[in-house]
Amino acid sequence: MSDLPFQDLYLAARADCWGCGRNNPDGLYLKSHWDGDEAVAQFMPQPQHTGHKGVLNGGIIATLMDCHCMGLAMAHAHRLEGRLIGSPPLITYVTASLKVDYLKPTPLGRVELRARVERGDGRKTWMSCHLLAGGQVTARAEVLGVRIAEPPAAADSA
Amino acid sequence: MSDLPFQDLYLAARADCWGCGRNNPDGLYLKSHWDGDEAVAQFMPQPQHTGHKGVLNGGIIATLMDCHCMGLAMAHAHRLEGRLIGSPPLITYVTASLKVDYLKPTPLGRVELRARVERGDGRKTWMSCHLLAGGQVTARAEVLGVRIAEPPAAADSA
Repeated sequence: MSDLPFQDLYLAARADCWGCGRNNPDGLYLKSHWDGDEAVAQFMPQPQHTGHKGVLNGGIIATLMDCHCMGLAMAHAHRLEGRLIGSPPLITYVTASLKVDYLKPTPLGRVELRARVERGDGRKTWMSCHLLAGGQVTARAEVLGVRIAEPPAAADSA
Repeated sequence: MSDLPFQDLYLAARADCWGCGRNNPDGLYLKSHWDGDEAVAQFMPQPQHTGHKGVLNGGIIATLMDCHCMGLAMAHAHRLEGRLIGSPPLITYVTASLKVDYLKPTPLGRVELRARVERGDGRKTWMSCHLLAGGQVTARAEVLGVRIAEPPAAADSA
């Protein structure tokens, strides 16, 4: 297995995402890793990523949780098949449902995301995700990812 | 009542938001209006707001729905009191819960948001929101906003 972040291993066909794609010209560039059975990511927001002054924007939080969990779904599917993320044939998950509960204001500073797979059934993977600021959980999410069929043309090289 | 977008009437203390604040240096600047009992907004994404290539990013969609519904919650609360948004004392809602169902890919082009208040109970307002692209609903959301107490210092002028 590789120590590179999930997102650095995505094939080019999946590397444009505003939240986590390495090829996006102006995105958030979220990077997620395995930590045992959890996916973990650190993120340092920019000053403009505010909601109310001094608080991390709720839409940015939703974006981070979405990208982090789709990364987890893809990493998990590759792990089950015993192969590297990004190795052909391409495995892609898309978000079917994202539910975020905002438990308390998240200060506009470094945050950590932790997610795990709760359940899988065929093409569907249910995940839970927590956002932590200063070690405190400030938001949590339930996310459903669905594996999509890929046309052969999408399975390009990285 | 005013024809200005809700967000242009927010007091300065609430105008920094990345999704909709007029004072954010680099945000989405969502603008929402009344259309009868619905809040409606148009949004034209930038090329970098992509998910998979050519598709509007799911985190951007969540951000738009969040800001649009909090704008609706605040506009609705002011309407119930028969006064202009932004007139003192400040009324602020924050997002407690946001559930987005992504029904189909949303092309990376102009979209419309339509939201309505479904129910209110004390400080809580439940709303539904639909995202439309080319007249088709591509995502829907259920959003819970909670009115927060404001310290007197936050009720500054616009």
